[in-house]
Amino acid sequence: MADKLWGGRFSEATDKLVEAFTSSIHVDRRLYAHDILGSQAHARTLAKAGVLTEAEAEKLCQGLDQVKAEIEAGDFTFDPALEDIHMHVESRLREVVGEVASRLHTGRSRNDQVATDIRLWMKDELAGVLGLLRDVRLALVYLAQGHLDCFMPGYTHLQRAQPVLAGHHFMAWYEMFTRDSRRMEGVLSRTDEMPLGSAALAGTTFPLDREYTAKLLGFSRVCANSMDAVSDRDFALEFTSTAAIAMIHLSRVSEEIVLWASREFAFLRLPDAFATGSSIMPQKKNPDVAELTRGKTGRVLGSFVALATLMKGLPLAYNRDMQEDKEPLFDAMGTLKSSLAVYARMLPNLELIPERTRAAALDGFLDATDLADYLAAKGMPFRDAHHVVGAAVSRAQALGRELHQLSLEGLRESSDLIGADVFAFLSLETMVNRRDTLGGTASRRVAEAIGKALEDLSAETD
Amino acid sequence: MADKLWGGRFSEATDKLVEAFTSSIHVDRRLYAHDILGSQAHARTLAKAGVLTEAEAEKLCQGLDQVKAEIEAGDFTFDPALEDIHMHVESRLREVVGEVASRLHTGRSRNDQVATDIRLWMKDELAGVLGLLRDVRLALVYLAQGHLDCFMPGYTHLQRAQPVLAGHHFMAWYEMFTRDSRRMEGVLSRTDEMPLGSAALAGTTFPLDREYTAKLLGFSRVCANSMDAVSDRDFALEFTSTAAIAMIHLSRVSEEIVLWASREFAFLRLPDAFATGSSIMPQKKNPDVAELTRGKTGRVLGSFVALATLMKGLPLAYNRDMQEDKEPLFDAMGTLKSSLAVYARMLPNLELIPERTRAAALDGFLDATDLADYLAAKGMPFRDAHHVVGAAVSRAQALGRELHQLSLEGLRESSDLIGADVFAFLSLETMVNRRDTLGGTASRRVAEAIGKALEDLSAETD
Amino acid sequence: MADKLWGGRFSEATDKLVEAFTSSIHVDRRLYAHDILGSQAHARTLAKAGVLTEAEAEKLCQGLDQVKAEIEAGDFTFDPALEDIHMHVESRLREVVGEVASRLHTGRSRNDQVATDIRLWMKDELAGVLGLLRDVRLALVYLAQGHLDCFMPGYTHLQRAQPVLAGHHFMAWYEMFTRDSRRMEGVLSRTDEMPLGSAALAGTTFPLDREYTAKLLGFSRVCANSMDAVSDRDFALEFTSTAAIAMIHLSRVSEEIVLWASREFAFLRLPDAFATGSSIMPQKKNPDVAELTRGKTGRVLGSFVALATLMKGLPLAYNRDMQEDKEPLFDAMGTLKSSLAVYARMLPNLELIPERTRAAALDGFLDATDLADYLAAKGMPFRDAHHVVGAAVSRAQALGRELHQLSLEGLRESSDLIGADVFAFLSLETMVNRRDTLGGTASRRVAEAIGKALEDLSAETD
Amino acid sequence: MADKLWGGRFSEATDKLVEAFTSSIHVDRRLYAHDILGSQAHARTLAKAGVLTEAEAEKLCQGLDQVKAEIEAGDFTFDPALEDIHMHVESRLREVVGEVASRLHTGRSRNDQVATDIRLWMKDELAGVLGLLRDVRLALVYLAQGHLDCFMPGYTHLQRAQPVLAGHHFMAWYEMFTRDSRRMEGVLSRTDEMPLGSAALAGTTFPLDREYTAKLLGFSRVCANSMDAVSDRDFALEFTSTAAIAMIHLSRVSEEIVLWASREFAFLRLPDAFATGSSIMPQKKNPDVAELTRGKTGRVLGSFVALATLMKGLPLAYNRDMQEDKEPLFDAMGTLKSSLAVYARMLPNLELIPERTRAAALDGFLDATDLADYLAAKGMPFRDAHHVVGAAVSRAQALGRELHQLSLEGLRESSDLIGADVFAFLSLETMVNRRDTLGGTASRRVAEAIGKALEDLSAETD
Repeated sequence: MADKLWGGRFSEATDKLVEAFTSSIHVDRRLYAHDILGSQAHARTLAKAGVLTEAEAEKLCQGLDQVKAEIEAGDFTFDPALEDIHMHVESRLREVVGEVASRLHTGRSRNDQVATDIRLWMKDELAGVLGLLRDVRLALVYLAQGHLDCFMPGYTHLQRAQPVLAGHHFMAWYEMFTRDSRRMEGVLSRTDEMPLGSAALAGTTFPLDREYTAKLLGFSRVCANSMDAVSDRDFALEFTSTAAIAMIHLSRVSEEIVLWASREFAFLRLPDAFATGSSIMPQKKNPDVAELTRGKTGRVLGSFVALATLMKGLPLAYNRDMQEDKEPLFDAMGTLKSSLAVYARMLPNLELIPERTRAAALDGFLDATDLADYLAAKGMPFRDAHHVVGAAVSRAQALGRELHQLSLEGLRESSDLIGADVFAFLSLETMVNRRDTLGGTASRRVAEAIGKALEDLSAETD
Repeated sequence: MADKLWGGRFSEATDKLVEAFTSSIHVDRRLYAHDILGSQAHARTLAKAGVLTEAEAEKLCQGLDQVKAEIEAGDFTFDPALEDIHMHVESRLREVVGEVASRLHTGRSRNDQVATDIRLWMKDELAGVLGLLRDVRLALVYLAQGHLDCFMPGYTHLQRAQPVLAGHHFMAWYEMFTRDSRRMEGVLSRTDEMPLGSAALAGTTFPLDREYTAKLLGFSRVCANSMDAVSDRDFALEFTSTAAIAMIHLSRVSEEIVLWASREFAFLRLPDAFATGSSIMPQKKNPDVAELTRGKTGRVLGSFVALATLMKGLPLAYNRDMQEDKEPLFDAMGTLKSSLAVYARMLPNLELIPERTRAAALDGFLDATDLADYLAAKGMPFRDAHHVVGAAVSRAQALGRELHQLSLEGLRESSDLIGADVFAFLSLETMVNRRDTLGGTASRRVAEAIGKALEDLSAETD
Repeated sequence: MADKLWGGRFSEATDKLVEAFTSSIHVDRRLYAHDILGSQAHARTLAKAGVLTEAEAEKLCQGLDQVKAEIEAGDFTFDPALEDIHMHVESRLREVVGEVASRLHTGRSRNDQVATDIRLWMKDELAGVLGLLRDVRLALVYLAQGHLDCFMPGYTHLQRAQPVLAGHHFMAWYEMFTRDSRRMEGVLSRTDEMPLGSAALAGTTFPLDREYTAKLLGFSRVCANSMDAVSDRDFALEFTSTAAIAMIHLSRVSEEIVLWASREFAFLRLPDAFATGSSIMPQKKNPDVAELTRGKTGRVLGSFVALATLMKGLPLAYNRDMQEDKEPLFDAMGTLKSSLAVYARMLPNLELIPERTRAAALDGFLDATDLADYLAAKGMPFRDAHHVVGAAVSRAQALGRELHQLSLEGLRESSDLIGADVFAFLSLETMVNRRDTLGGTASRRVAEAIGKALEDLSAETD
Repeated sequence: MADKLWGGRFSEATDKLVEAFTSSIHVDRRLYAHDILGSQAHARTLAKAGVLTEAEAEKLCQGLDQVKAEIEAGDFTFDPALEDIHMHVESRLREVVGEVASRLHTGRSRNDQVATDIRLWMKDELAGVLGLLRDVRLALVYLAQGHLDCFMPGYTHLQRAQPVLAGHHFMAWYEMFTRDSRRMEGVLSRTDEMPLGSAALAGTTFPLDREYTAKLLGFSRVCANSMDAVSDRDFALEFTSTAAIAMIHLSRVSEEIVLWASREFAFLRLPDAFATGSSIMPQKKNPDVAELTRGKTGRVLGSFVALATLMKGLPLAYNRDMQEDKEPLFDAMGTLKSSLAVYARMLPNLELIPERTRAAALDGFLDATDLADYLAAKGMPFRDAHHVVGAAVSRAQALGRELHQLSLEGLRESSDLIGADVFAFLSLETMVNRRDTLGGTASRRVAEAIGKALEDLSAETD
């Protein structure tokens, strides 16, 4: 019965199945440049230590340059049987420079080699992330600057609450991405440590000058403990969680763009290039970029969860499980970068429709709080003022009007304290500008915040 | 300053950036066969409804066959500008059959089309998953059968607790994957509903016989509500969470293989084909397949988290976010299937080293519980028996011996009730076989369980 | 220096710290009733096996009844030093019935005991979940029934797309929760297996009739493998992931309620009892229940992630890690049940404002698709019809009108084929009722779906 | 039929159900002290702004002191109807100081109030976390110092690879927690911003000196944008993800303790106070603390997932969903702190059994690499050396011996280059000390690392 039950699924030879399962070349091939860079620095360090002659090191470095050129020219065959990028490079190097290639691996193991490759790659990528975050932040500051006289409703519970400047709203987004930048700098600083010289796990028996290697590769420090160096993947955990937070910010911005682009809100003219239409419904402009970005949030969160679950409970030092670190890391990096890039490009083209947002800010009793303030300022106890305004709103609602649409007489039915100055007091301009403490929506405060942001951004480039 | 700050990151034209961001062809191209199948069924349904003539439908179906053949022959150009697989197929179809191609999309939208494609694809893949789970389960049953006389320690807290049969241990694994099969059947049954005819979201205005389409495509039912049909991704959520549970089972099995392959346990002869060696340390046999599988667990969990986060809070009906459903789904499917496949292949080659596992089962006072039972059976109150055995163990430890290594005299120092029959009572065979209730480790119980399992597996194939 | 560095954080005695860390009584005390039930069944099984006399078993059962009564009366002292609920019950039982209490634990360990307790508890809770899901589904069916003549826009990308019946929309929600019910039934069926008799891990040496225990406790089956029985937590994994999916559905419903309650949509009269107001802004009605429910979604997802991470990589059989299974499980259960309960209560009180939703359905060219259909029906090739309608929409937009607001003459500028019958063709009623295939929004189809749902719900109670 | 179907689940009045669902007092009551602190600073700021008189502010502050004292004395009734901690404090304050209590809420809303409370609480808790991390790190340094002459196997793939010093292993753990400290400092610095003055979302109309409030409360900065201030929960996201990484470290340490405590490894004498025994099996010492800590890892990861899912896609500014931020945050904080505390207490009591670890380091050909190095140093080409050693190992295995257990003659069968000095060369001491680059396991390097760590820890306290 066994034979019958077993079925014939295994037409491939065992070796192929296991080979495909354990091979990582389809994933880690993108590390080729950093792998080669690391190897060149290692060759020079071996020469410095007297393990290789200068001539040998030079030969290796030139050979590696050639391999790199071949990969970049597309003249390179990737073969699952050669398992990973390290073996591909080394194997081709042997063909190019001969037997000396074998000596390159002296004092090194794949454990410290791959850790070095990823960290080198991440440092480059993180620089890119920081640049993109700056682009997004700068776009937001200019957007805010362009919306300093655009009034809109501020919301809580997605209910209109109080009027704000659109510029203030955009600067709220700016704050989110500024925090992301700070966090990414932290990730970068902790990624900036060099594992080479840790060998398999215990350190190398060759007198390698690790500080020298670090200097050649542009690392600020060497990893302080060889066992930790080959078993640590904190940089990947830290990056993906930090990236997930940045994506959450993008998802919140995206949600607002989707809302604003709806016919119900209609706050936004969505730039054509960032939306798709419909062949039938000509009015339809789908906010695809915002939707897709919002949808990609989970993916980056999922990458962190994948990595966290992967690392949980692993004993020291290297375990093969850790080969699975690359896909979530690469995917999170690619997703974050493309999302930031498309936003950096889209944001400068966003344009609110001020007559729509203004009309919305005037509709829904967003001035009720301020009318109570008005009465309080005229001497009415606050609690009474609240009560009086509540009644006024009810009356206005019954008439199908807003408070500011009532006549002075109509308003004075609520209280004799109300004078003709109330209309100026309840104008959008006045209400917004009265929120004039640090961080408030008053236009001079927003302008101040913009100035500060431009200064900070400028300082960061220096 | 702006110019200087802004930098020149955007060398690509906007269109390219957005196009790349929104295109899904690199991901959904693998749905080509199911997309074409769905289109053919739709063409036939249009003909049945009189919207197309039979000849037109036939022409479309043949054209689609040709497109499929071209794709499979590799004679097909994929172009990011054509966004997704649906447009690729339709565009080529127009070249092949002319203008009638446009009529294929009558009464259909991409929203119900893509939902149908994924469900068709999933049904095929789930059949594959169920087959692989059966392979794994069958392998375990045979493994259990081959280890019916192999004694080993059973562990709690990774501390040796009581002796068990290795066959019993393997049948515990079997239970896990049997539950996975039951769950996957549930997923399959809920995936087996057809969305076509739901059109964009409200249903179609053409008198399509949806039951007929379902029959053509092998679906058991049609989706009962058009809005739900285009906005539901439960099948993906359900599959990935169920797959994550199956991977957790594989991770537990893998953990045990890693432990058993260690020099400390040394319970296992790891088949060469499923391990890697080291060029230097000839004794080293790394359990790579087990490690990698354990490492892949997080990845599938991450896919579920990605999808759950994606779907959270989406209003009806279709949103572009949902385009992001495919990568986590495809990745989870691929990971689960390859992991099951490699285990189905590896498990039959596992072999415990019975002298090692037996020695371990005899070392560590795994018979203490049974000695107390022995005394209780001779009439000593249980509580006293525990006390007496505790003292006996202490004495044995002081002598560096196990209980069963003491002489009868040595044992009788603990209690006069102990007779020569104690040694038989404390033999591994006796201890194991005394656990003789349903589900216990007694060899006849394990044999019973194996028989039952083979029956069940056999019944499943019918 | 050490002393100075060390600081004096450890004022508590070690024992207290470890005791608090390892104790679970604050969490598992809620299992008291199921623990007692399980113990009573075990006592009776011991009697049936002749291990206890009938009188002893009776004494134990009565003593356990008394302990239960004391706990329920609040006359019971919980003490962290007694670690868990099992020890609390046993310790008090000994005070009540004397020494025979010790014999209750014969043939049982805490490993199979706790697994039994949780499964018993889950079975009760799952019955509650299924009841609440039914309440929600029934509420939705009635809601749909009450909105059979309420037109509203159907959305894709949160853009108005085509008109639908509100009743159709509510039936889409119904479908989601019906799938949840089916899934929960699957969870229940796999939870319904009894672990007792598995003892620590290897099975018991006492001739316990496990089928008898299962029958006493209302379990359908016994767990088939003792090692699996004490190390399996699939039921918790399965439940929490299934609950997360149900919460995602609630989050989607909640999102729509939040949108509809906004001033921009204003589709909804939110029942007072399910919203909060503001002391200042009398127009404000915050959809708190919907927001909180949406917010709770992550929590249940988090519980699944917690459990999945917990179980990943654990070797057989019981490990103390598994004590951490209860909090995520309890929290997910409580969160799901309270969310369903509050929705079951709120949904019957939802009321769309038909004049608002109808107006929205008439605004935004939701009839463009149908006008093209109209022209096609009159003989114009489809592709031309699309083109003609596109131009018509542009003209209408320039005039600030909808298509249906144009005069017949105005429409005929687009095509001579347009006749006076076009207005009836483009009425909401006609458009909706034209979507008349199975699952479409035509009112007779929605009524059909409602009838089917009521039948199904009715059948489920039998 | 409806009535019959509906059932009578709703015995509680609606209000109670919704009240219980929306109330947060059972969770946020623990913020009482920080809520009161924040209110006192707010009162003083109102006085500085002239909104309150100094006397009024003083009265409020004293009243708040009294409320705090009442809560701490347990003389305080918590009532779900009063929803949250803010309303509890305010309501009691009104009873204590009379009507002036109402004026405390001037220029403030619950939105900025709760954000301030949580940040204040977090700052205190994070200081605690940093202290505990220091305790753990210090414990590890001392542990390393106490194991400077303890040899053990270093592992990769859980296979013995090369010998290391146990002190080196412990310093690898130290590196993990040092990174956690650095990350937590980053979290703290970003949490250290004050929201008060942001009011509901737009800023306050009262001329509050926010810098003054910040100074009173010990904040370094004020939040720069009012809308961001009330809608930002980055601090919770950042903390929980950082805590999850720290828990992953603890899980890895725990895994190793569990392994070492097994009979198979037996590297460890587990301190009695941190393990549990078994009433039957006296040899059993379960590593409960390590297991539980490992199990708690998922819980903290789950908290981050919960928060991330919660925040995903929320529009500005405050939404009620955000009330759900507290439980995952509190739970993650409590879990991390108790885990660190118990480890800080347990680690100083860990003790490896040097004869066991040494024996393990001598068993399994961990000297094969070094023998190849030996031959290479004597002039044999490396590649040949590898080959020769491979053969030697095979011969030794056939004899059931280790390389270092062969006679000189036996070794010389492999190569004439081997001399009597080989035994010294392959001694554990020599092998370990030959790994003498920065970060290696050579004892002087480990001592160096310990010295550096003590310096760093000492500097941190200043």
